[in-house]
Amino acid sequence: MGKIIGLVGVGLIGGSMVLDLKEKSFASKIIGTDLSEKNLNKALELSIIDEAVGLDSLIEHSDIIVLATPVNATVELVPYVLDRIRKDTYVLDVGSTKSLLSRNVAEHTMRGNFVATHPMSGTEYSGPEAAFKGLFKDRVAIICDPEKSSPKALNLISELYYHLNMRLILMDADAHDEHVGYVSHLSHAISYALAVAVLDKEKDDSAIFNLAAGGFASTVRLAKSSVDMWLPIFEQNADHILPILDIYLDKLSAFRDHLKERDTEQLAGFIKEANRIKGKLNK
Amino acid sequence: MGKIIGLVGVGLIGGSMVLDLKEKSFASKIIGTDLSEKNLNKALELSIIDEAVGLDSLIEHSDIIVLATPVNATVELVPYVLDRIRKDTYVLDVGSTKSLLSRNVAEHTMRGNFVATHPMSGTEYSGPEAAFKGLFKDRVAIICDPEKSSPKALNLISELYYHLNMRLILMDADAHDEHVGYVSHLSHAISYALAVAVLDKEKDDSAIFNLAAGGFASTVRLAKSSVDMWLPIFEQNADHILPILDIYLDKLSAFRDHLKERDTEQLAGFIKEANRIKGKLNK
Repeated sequence: MGKIIGLVGVGLIGGSMVLDLKEKSFASKIIGTDLSEKNLNKALELSIIDEAVGLDSLIEHSDIIVLATPVNATVELVPYVLDRIRKDTYVLDVGSTKSLLSRNVAEHTMRGNFVATHPMSGTEYSGPEAAFKGLFKDRVAIICDPEKSSPKALNLISELYYHLNMRLILMDADAHDEHVGYVSHLSHAISYALAVAVLDKEKDDSAIFNLAAGGFASTVRLAKSSVDMWLPIFEQNADHILPILDIYLDKLSAFRDHLKERDTEQLAGFIKEANRIKGKLNK
Repeated sequence: MGKIIGLVGVGLIGGSMVLDLKEKSFASKIIGTDLSEKNLNKALELSIIDEAVGLDSLIEHSDIIVLATPVNATVELVPYVLDRIRKDTYVLDVGSTKSLLSRNVAEHTMRGNFVATHPMSGTEYSGPEAAFKGLFKDRVAIICDPEKSSPKALNLISELYYHLNMRLILMDADAHDEHVGYVSHLSHAISYALAVAVLDKEKDDSAIFNLAAGGFASTVRLAKSSVDMWLPIFEQNADHILPILDIYLDKLSAFRDHLKERDTEQLAGFIKEANRIKGKLNK
């Protein structure tokens, strides 16, 4: 029998999730809420949700509550929601940071009903218009601190991710934040800086952006990502991002020095070292 | 009547180019040469070229010669080829740097038969196996220093790019190197550094690279690009790359400092400034 899913935050991630869950009949009905009335109406119009409700009504009527909000909102929402759910309601978040959230709910009496998850997919766009079926297909979803969730909660959320065609990986919240800091958050930081540097230097839009072929487009793509989502991620995960950002700055400065000195051997070594990434990504 | 095209360098760029030109009947026959005998045989096997020949024979028998080699080879090949062509043979290069090349052939008596071009497309892969039809479709090709080429040469090469479905932009060689330094070369440098930093920090491949979702994959993609192609590009264009690399390092260091100080307002400003790239790319 399909579940009633309550979606808090009707954007790219949450919206894409429920579109698939409803198609797979895992969900029989989607009720949704959002701080933005405009987005909420848009989600209704696009049939992402079946009904728009208030947060307390959503908590009361949902079998599963998906918290798909910026991570600063999520850390406050999880205890608020756990304070109010029925015994047979389960809650998951889908945020990109987990350490603070994990500490924040560690002692909650309903902690077992909550599963901290991170489905690793997305695009540089946001809002309900950006949601689409299949966003998560064949990607990885991380379940953080699984021992803190009840077996029943884990099984239910595993089933949910099975219907999204995702592969599950279990991980400690701190390890999650460290690894995701390396691969995801660092990539966003360097992409934002690329956009800022090039916009600073190139006053004449048309000359340059005509030339923005594949290389620039793919490196700067993430720089379009929304400030509402990414600012709180950077702030919550600063302790993990800063050390790898420093290593990155050191490496790029070394490359700059080799280039300044026209040190062919060092430059070649640097590029060949970077090329090692080839074998790592496609397995 | 189709032309006999002589392809020097049977890799991704040259190979993709002649595949389309032959399909469009702009070329009746492709003869090819390459320093790598293995690649040359592969290009024959894949029907990218019809015949493998030596360089001098290629020069003698071609109507159009496409130089699709690493840019350090190109600067030496252009005068060598211009010394030997018939009066009705035309030559183009497709390299990513133009200033040095332009100076190098400025006074050549056959300069009018040469067109310096840069079709702005590519992938992170290389060699004849990486070539495919349609690589250049709807992209931009830059013609550098058009006033140095004869009208006949320009018209012929324009026709060649028309058959690749490319849009032409005319540009001074130095302006080309500066702009391409910003959008293409800088993107490669920061992607190489990202790969080096993450490989340095993450000893445990499997843990992290499982997490390499869209964000990391697109930012690090260029780090797979071959050293043979990119080392000479960096070296030839160092004077244009170093200033924008310094600006980039300054901007990213500023972001790091804002993050270290948890300066929400500055971080938000930085991200919003980066977001301005949104409107610039899709026109």
